[in-house]
Parts: sequence; structure tokens; C-alpha cells
Amino acid sequence: MQNFKSPVRDTLFVMNELLGFEKHYEKLGFEDATLDMVEAICAEAAKFTDNVLAPINAIGDEIGCKWQDGEVTTPPGFKEAYQTYVEGGWPSMTHPEEFGGQGLPYSLASSIAEWFSGANHSWAMYPGLSQGCIATILAHGTDEQKQRFLPSLIEGSWTGTMCLTESHCGSDLGMLKSKAVPNDDGTYSITGTKIFISAGEHDFSDNIVHIVLARLPDAPEGTRGISLFVIPKFNVNEDGSVGERNAVACGSIEHKMGIKASATCVINFDQAKGYLIGEPNRGLNCMFTFMNSARIGTGLEGLAGTEAAFQGALAYAKDRLQFRSSQGPVNPDGPADPIIVHPDVRRMLLTQKAFREGNRALAIYCMQMVDLTLYSDNDEEKQVAEAKLALLTPIVKAFLTETAQETTSYGMQVYGGHGYIKEWGMEQLARDTRICTMYEGTTGIQAIDLLGRKIMGSNGELLKVFAKEVQEYCMNLRGKAQFNAWSNAIETHLGEWVQMTQEIAKRAADNPDEVGAASVDYLMYSGYIIVGYMWLKMAVVAQQKLDEGSDEKAFYQAKLQTAGFYFDRILSRTRSLASAIETGAENLMSMPEDHFLVG
Amino acid sequence: MQNFKSPVRDTLFVMNELLGFEKHYEKLGFEDATLDMVEAICAEAAKFTDNVLAPINAIGDEIGCKWQDGEVTTPPGFKEAYQTYVEGGWPSMTHPEEFGGQGLPYSLASSIAEWFSGANHSWAMYPGLSQGCIATILAHGTDEQKQRFLPSLIEGSWTGTMCLTESHCGSDLGMLKSKAVPNDDGTYSITGTKIFISAGEHDFSDNIVHIVLARLPDAPEGTRGISLFVIPKFNVNEDGSVGERNAVACGSIEHKMGIKASATCVINFDQAKGYLIGEPNRGLNCMFTFMNSARIGTGLEGLAGTEAAFQGALAYAKDRLQFRSSQGPVNPDGPADPIIVHPDVRRMLLTQKAFREGNRALAIYCMQMVDLTLYSDNDEEKQVAEAKLALLTPIVKAFLTETAQETTSYGMQVYGGHGYIKEWGMEQLARDTRICTMYEGTTGIQAIDLLGRKIMGSNGELLKVFAKEVQEYCMNLRGKAQFNAWSNAIETHLGEWVQMTQEIAKRAADNPDEVGAASVDYLMYSGYIIVGYMWLKMAVVAQQKLDEGSDEKAFYQAKLQTAGFYFDRILSRTRSLASAIETGAENLMSMPEDHFLVG
Repeated sequence: MQNFKSPVRDTLFVMNELLGFEKHYEKLGFEDATLDMVEAICAEAAKFTDNVLAPINAIGDEIGCKWQDGEVTTPPGFKEAYQTYVEGGWPSMTHPEEFGGQGLPYSLASSIAEWFSGANHSWAMYPGLSQGCIATILAHGTDEQKQRFLPSLIEGSWTGTMCLTESHCGSDLGMLKSKAVPNDDGTYSITGTKIFISAGEHDFSDNIVHIVLARLPDAPEGTRGISLFVIPKFNVNEDGSVGERNAVACGSIEHKMGIKASATCVINFDQAKGYLIGEPNRGLNCMFTFMNSARIGTGLEGLAGTEAAFQGALAYAKDRLQFRSSQGPVNPDGPADPIIVHPDVRRMLLTQKAFREGNRALAIYCMQMVDLTLYSDNDEEKQVAEAKLALLTPIVKAFLTETAQETTSYGMQVYGGHGYIKEWGMEQLARDTRICTMYEGTTGIQAIDLLGRKIMGSNGELLKVFAKEVQEYCMNLRGKAQFNAWSNAIETHLGEWVQMTQEIAKRAADNPDEVGAASVDYLMYSGYIIVGYMWLKMAVVAQQKLDEGSDEKAFYQAKLQTAGFYFDRILSRTRSLASAIETGAENLMSMPEDHFLVG
Repeated sequence: MQNFKSPVRDTLFVMNELLGFEKHYEKLGFEDATLDMVEAICAEAAKFTDNVLAPINAIGDEIGCKWQDGEVTTPPGFKEAYQTYVEGGWPSMTHPEEFGGQGLPYSLASSIAEWFSGANHSWAMYPGLSQGCIATILAHGTDEQKQRFLPSLIEGSWTGTMCLTESHCGSDLGMLKSKAVPNDDGTYSITGTKIFISAGEHDFSDNIVHIVLARLPDAPEGTRGISLFVIPKFNVNEDGSVGERNAVACGSIEHKMGIKASATCVINFDQAKGYLIGEPNRGLNCMFTFMNSARIGTGLEGLAGTEAAFQGALAYAKDRLQFRSSQGPVNPDGPADPIIVHPDVRRMLLTQKAFREGNRALAIYCMQMVDLTLYSDNDEEKQVAEAKLALLTPIVKAFLTETAQETTSYGMQVYGGHGYIKEWGMEQLARDTRICTMYEGTTGIQAIDLLGRKIMGSNGELLKVFAKEVQEYCMNLRGKAQFNAWSNAIETHLGEWVQMTQEIAKRAADNPDEVGAASVDYLMYSGYIIVGYMWLKMAVVAQQKLDEGSDEKAFYQAKLQTAGFYFDRILSRTRSLASAIETGAENLMSMPEDHFLVG
């Protein structure tokens, strides 16, 4: 099995060389986040990732989580890895110093979180969920709630969850039934059953803090009657110490295709004591505040799968000997050549590489926008970042996870039959990564969010804001003949994208199903263009570095070659998508339900 | 979990209404294979499939095969299902009456084999491998070998395997090392270790007959020095009774992503007694005789995954309530509408349906060609069938299994998060079906076979033979205005296909890597056109049935609607593929191996 190696160099390329993070951090007042400090933190994170998380990934899959009498035991080494993580101070990176945090930027922690997932998707989910819980309390909790819950969560001695889904409602949260009844002391008694609660029960920490959606008595029906509560597994005394057990119980854990070391719990609340967070009936709005980072986080899990699959496939392709190169032997002393000489193996590897690097650039670009929304004190800059983020978040979530299905599948395919065998680790990657297009809003949900809520909902404004950036970039590049073909391809696509959007809008005015009918193809189409824009920008930077005489020639030349591959062989996927989109909704909707026959 | 239902109606539509199997069987002299008899056999097969095989599919995955001290125990119910299969006479369907067979046509058994796989992929592999073993002995064995091995294999009291792969050679069989030394009595002592041997050891039968590739002393290197042997697990006395144990041992079984109830064995031959089949050093040629049906068989496993995933997704889409139709509630008394009202859910279901039916038509069309190669006494007809089969076999193998990755993935995706949970059965389908693009020659190997060996190797002749059929069909259709758009689409594609092939040939004359660089995209491109041709033909038949006043209106209208969906939304996938193909090999081959960096 190939050892996972954190993609430090490539991440730093995107942060520092592509996106100018040194100035970005300086401008936002992160005095500690200097180039040297960022590099040092990344080096430490890579050590933890590669030496602690990666080695327990396979055993995590093999043994999985065990449930007995409401208790969940995580696989060997998982608890200890979490202790190491806490001792390393990783949980507190981005949080305010007043609650014990280190006040470092979101984008730095998030870039590192990709590596955690790449080494061990299951393990990385536990701290990931805590971050969602912390962010919710930070943004919407009262001062007292913050004092009570945050220090232990931020330190990592407690972990957190997000409890949304119920068995009859996943995407359609308006149907949720959990009830919250006010008590005399200002607390609430919450009753209901939540499913699919990641990290809902485990053996990592002294306490688990659940963020729970439920309905107050007489709340309006649908999504406007949902409130948000914090419900600890153990009640918390006013001094923050752990008190009595709350009426919160893990009823069972799911048996799943993958992420088997991540406990996916049924959590029963039986008049559990909880605290209202934010305004009554505004729970969903509070949740949406963090949808962006949660969805980018899921996109990162997809990217992480791509990274790990690329590493595995590449190692095997250089090692496995089968057949000769059609150009003549390159390994004449061996019985055959390494399979990386064969064009179709290279097609798979380059596809992985193109998404590994292009998708990472897009993800970190979005993190930069999140930084601006969180930390900028320039209102206009903040608004622009929010607009771009609104557009890009569903794309990052869905595009990075959909392309990860292809890349992790290639991870297996490059190994041939061996890819199907557990010991090589590639099939675990495919299984673990498969969840990413389903949880945190399916691809279909992201696509409706993008095309319906964001683009149609803004009358195209959000698209214009981003298109302006791309347009300006391409215009500024016009002098550079080397990049004309790629730059023109992006500009042409940009024009087609805008026009296609207008045509869908026209059709949707008559038939609202036109939005759903176009949505997923439209999202993928958009993703290919945006990642193409990232590749154009990366190529320009790489050429500049080569012109400046960099001694990392292989690294930068590979960027240019991979950009060439992307523009030749990947970007043209837009042709089929555009063609499908323009056929409209009729071919999907005309068949009556009873024509879908089995037999 | 959705119960599997054998697609009897749809299979009979293809056999009888689309491809005229009644006359086809009559012409080939299968007097027993009348319409009524075929229907009766299908009905019996469906009973066995739906009532015996389907119910043990999930437990097969959960418990898997167990290895201990060289013995393999199959999951509960598997052995009993095999007994039922034997008692039903299913193993002997297509074999000669002189060895106890029923002399029924290949295509009938093969159509039914799809259903076995759809209900229980793992189980279906055991009898599937026996068929390969039987066919090999029938074609290349001596009369004595046939008498010794065939009656018990055909009866089903013994099973068979095909032992090709060794740890260092999968696709590249020229590297294989197993040795065969002649004994004085005309037998051979075979020594070597084979891996990935499906059904290599199990508890179904009294004996297991291995077909094994090995090298004679002083055999030439490479593929021209490989001979074929039959090696029984227990030696067989001259009267056909089981004798002493042979030096054949199962060293272990693989732990795999899926098909866990199929024993994938390491088989050690330690001076095992074996019999040469066919000429010395011609073993690979003997194997190739059956490559067509083995590869069509794997394609059928992909189709079977598509079928089962469609059934599961459709049931859930009609049942699961989430959100309202954008056209207004269709289930006003319920809390939400079934998700089949949403356009993107329909896009996934219709994609499954389009491949389920279009791919089945292609598969059975190929079986018809196999019938002709096996049973026709008209040399010209036989030659044409062989030519078409040579072209279509790698496409059926790869296209039906690659599209099955998409359809089984949609099976999960339609379920949202529930798709990832074992109890719904959809994730098992995705895992089980994943192997199909890897074993029996990867997609890359099929693509090289198609474009290199078959198309370039015949100077385009094979493509011409098939193109002629399609061209003639489309020309005959020109009068029917209803089908003009689809027929024109096929004709246009046909022209582009031929031209593209010529262009690749031109480039390949200078650079042999051009073949590999185009190959997989070319194969998929070809598949989309051919399945489009199948959809055109199915639509024409369906319209005719409607015109004749059939009372199966929903069935035939659905065919027309699904054809419309295919021509609108699936066929246009050729646009991206054609665009990628024409970019050539340079973008794949120019990057030096050491530019593929990790980090």
C-alpha cells in the first residue's frame, strides 16, 4: 500500500504563488501567518498527517466502529491519534484567543484539513464536525453559552456534532418532527430521533455537544418553524465542568459502504435538556451561515480522495511491469516496461493530476473568499467575496466530489484487478470518497442551489461578478501569445455560459422544471470552466517562475503540461454538457410515472 | 431492500420483437426453441432467479467466503442454491446431447445468465466459470478428455475454472512462469501459482476442473510458448469416477471490495497431474476461441448491475417523499411528493433505463452473432457474424461495464445518504459491479483490442462490415419522417466515425502511441453510436406495435420516450469524446515520467 504524503508543496504553490496569501494574510491582520510560519505549521501538520493518521487508515476500515449498549468504540489507534491532535493544539487553530484559540486564518486550517481527509477520511470527520459545532455557537450563542461550551470544544477535550437529518427528511428539512418544549428555567426539553449523525457517539472525549434542529410548540410548519438547540451528552455545570448524563443516547450505528471508522449514529433525544441558540424559528438561517464552509469542507474530502488516489495510482504505474512501450523498451533489462509508458494509463494519471491540482486551486481560492467574508473590514471587498462564494460553494461541493468519483475509480483501474483487492488501499478510497456526493446536500441539491437559488435568484448577478474577474484576467493576458489559445477558450466558454444561462432563464419562466432539468449538467459545465480558469492562471505563474530561472523545473513544467492536457482533453467535456442542457426539460418530464416499468 | 425481478418482458422484446429470434432459432435448426418453449424456460429461470438467488445476495455479501486450511466455505444458502440449479438442469442447457446436454442455443442461456448476475453477481460466477471450462474442453479436448470430464461438468456435479493470471502477469500473459513437465504416461506435472482464480475452491461440488496456462520445457518465450492443461482437483479415473486428491491447493482467498461471496483464490499447483489440451504452445490461441463469449459474459454482468440498480432506484423514487413538484403537489394528501417528480431524479432514472434497455439490445444482438458463428452452416453468414462479433465484443465488454459504473452509482445517488447504507442494497451493487471493468481484460485492454487489433489490424474492414448494416437500415428508414432526426443523427455519426478512424490511422502510421491515446475514448464513442442504433431500431419496432394496436401501450410508449431521451441527452456525449480524440497523443506522452511528482 502506498504511504500517503501530504501535498505540502502543491498547497503552498496555490496559497503563495497563485493566490498571494502572504499579502492576503498581512492585509487581514494575521501578523503571525507569515510565509515562514505558514510553512512551519504545514510541515508540522504533514508530520501528524503522514505519520499518525495515514498508518491507521486501513485498520480503521477493517475494524470499523463498534456499538454496544449505546457506547461506540472507535478502531485501534483512533483515540490516541485524537489525543495527539489535541496535544498538538490543532483544534484551536482558527478560534478566538479569548476562548483559548490561536487566532489563525480559516484558510490555513482548511488547507490542512484536506490532508487529514486524504490520509484518513473517517478520522478527519470527528474534528471536522466539532468545527461546525464551534462555529455555530460562536456565531449564534449567548455569552453564557460560549463560556460554557467553547473552551472545552476549542481545546478539543469535547467534540461536537450537527444533528439535522431525520429518517423521513434529509434534503427536505421542512418536514422535520423533533420537538422542543420550554422548561421553567429557560432551558428546553428536546425529544426526537436524528439519523446519520457523524461523530454522534465515540470514545475520543469527555463530552459531546450536539447542535440540534427541532420545533418549538406552535411553530409554523415547514422550514420557517425550525429552531436550533445545543444539547450536551453530559450536562455542563456553570463552571464548565461535566455534570450528569443528559437524556441523549446513541441507538445504533449504520453499516455503510465506507468511512467505517466514522461513527454514523442514530441519536435519540428523550426530553433531553438543551439550550436555544439564536432566535426561535430561525434555526435554518443560523445553519445556513455555515453551509459555505461545511460544503467547502465536503468538497475538500473529495479533493483529498483524488489526491490519495493519484498518489496510489502513480506509485503503481511506475512500479508495475506489463508489456513494452510502443516506442520500444524503456526498461530493456526488465521483463517488461512500467505501465506509465502506456498512453491510456497516462490519460488516467493526468486526469487525476489535472483535478488534484486544478480542484485544489479552486478550493483554496474559495477559502480566500471565506477569509475575506470573515475577517475583512472593507465592506465592498466583503460583498464581492460573498457573491463569489455564493456562486462557487455549490460548485466546489459538487464538482470536487463528482470528479473524485472518477479519480478514485481510476485509482483502482490503474491497478487492474489488484485495485479491487483490499490490501492495496485503492478500493477503500473509492468507497470512502463515494459518500461525498451524497451527504451535506447531494449533487442534485447543490445544482438546484447554484442554478435556482443563486443564479436565477440573483437574476444572473452572481454570475456576472465572477465572470467579470475572469474576463479581466483574460483581457490582461492578451499580449501573451503563449497563452492565447487557452485564454480564448476560457473567454469563449464564458460567453457561452452567460448566454446559456439566459436561455435557461427564458425557458424557466414558462416551466420551472427547466431549472432542475439543466441543473446538474449546468453545475458540471460551470465547474469545468472555472477549473480551466484556475489552470490558465497556474500556467501563467509556472511560466513566470521558469522565466525567472527557478530550479524547480520539473514542478513548473509539469504545471504547464498538465494545463495543456486539461485544455485539450478535459475542458471539451463542456461540449456534451452544453448539448444536453439545451435539450430542455421535455425529454425528462414527458414520461408518465407508470411508464417506468420493471420486468 | 427492493426485490429483484428478472427482466423477462424486456428480454423477450429484444429477442422476439427486435431481433426475430423465432426465425433465427428455426433457421439454425433449434426445433425445441419455439416461442412458447423459450417463454416457458424464461419463466422457470425467472422463478429460480427471483426466488432462490436474489434472497441470498445480501447475506452472501455480509458473510462472504471463508478460507480455512485450504477449504473454502461459501455463505449460507449458496450451496443449496447451486443444488437447485443443478436439479433444474440449468448447467446443461447449451451442451451437446451426447454428453448429457440439452442442445439449446447459446443465446438463450446467455440471456438468462444476465438475470442470475442481476440477482446475485457472486453466485452467478461459479456456474459462469464452469461454462468457460466446458467450452474449452469441448473445442480442444481429445475424445478421451471429453468422456472423462464433460459429463460431470455438464451435469453440474463438478465445476470448472480458468487459471490464467499470475501475480506478476495479468494482461501481459507472455510473462507467465508456471511450468509443465511431461511424465512418462503422457500426463504432465504442473507447478506454479495462479492468482485471482474465481471459483477456484468452494463447497458446491465433488470436484473442480481447472483449465491452466503453463509452459512446457524449452517452450519459446512470450505468448508463443504457452500451453493449455486440464488439471482436476481430484484425479479422475477412466470411468469418470473421482480418485485421489491431486497436488492442487487453495493457498488463500482475496479480501475484495465486492463479490465477496465469490471465492477469488490463490491456487498452488505443486507437480499436479494434468493433461495437455490442444497443441503444445498454442494455449493462448485455444483461450482466445472463448474470449468472445467470456467477454460478452462480463458485459452482461455490467448490464445486470444496471438492471438491478434501476429497479432499486425506481422503487425508491416512487416511494420516497421529499419536496413538492415545481408544477404543484402531485401527492397533496401527503407531506411531500415522491422524488420521481424532480427532473434530476428522472435524469438519473432515464439514464439507467436507457442503458438497461439499449445495452441489453446490443448484448443480445451479439449473442445472435455468436449463435451464427456456432451453429450456422452458411459460410458467408458465419463470416459476417464473426466480423461483427470481432468488432462488437470489446465494445460490449467495456461499454456495458463502464456505463454500469454510472448506473450503479446513480442507484445510490437516487437514495441520497440512504444509498450509502448497506441495508438498502444499492452500495453492494456498486461494489459488486465495480470489478467488471477490471477483470476479463480491463477497459484499456478492450480498447486496444478494438482500435489496434480489430480496426487497425483489419485496415478498417471490420468497421465497414458493421457500418454497412447500419447504413442500410437508416437508408431503408428514410421514408419515415417520424424517425428522420434520429436516423440522421446515426448516419452523421457513422460518417464521423469512419473519418475519425482514418485520421487516427494516419497519425498512428507515424506514432504507434496514437492508438492507445485514442483508444478508450474511441471505444466509448463507438458504444454510444451503436447503442443509439439499437435505440433507433427499438423505437421503430415500438411504433409499429402501437400502430398495430397493441394493448401494452405503456411499454411501447416508454420505448419511444426513452429513445427520445437517449438521442437528446446521451448520444451527444460523443461530442466531448470526439473532441478529446482529435487532440492526439502528444498531450499524454510529452510529460517525462519524473514530472509526475507527489507532494
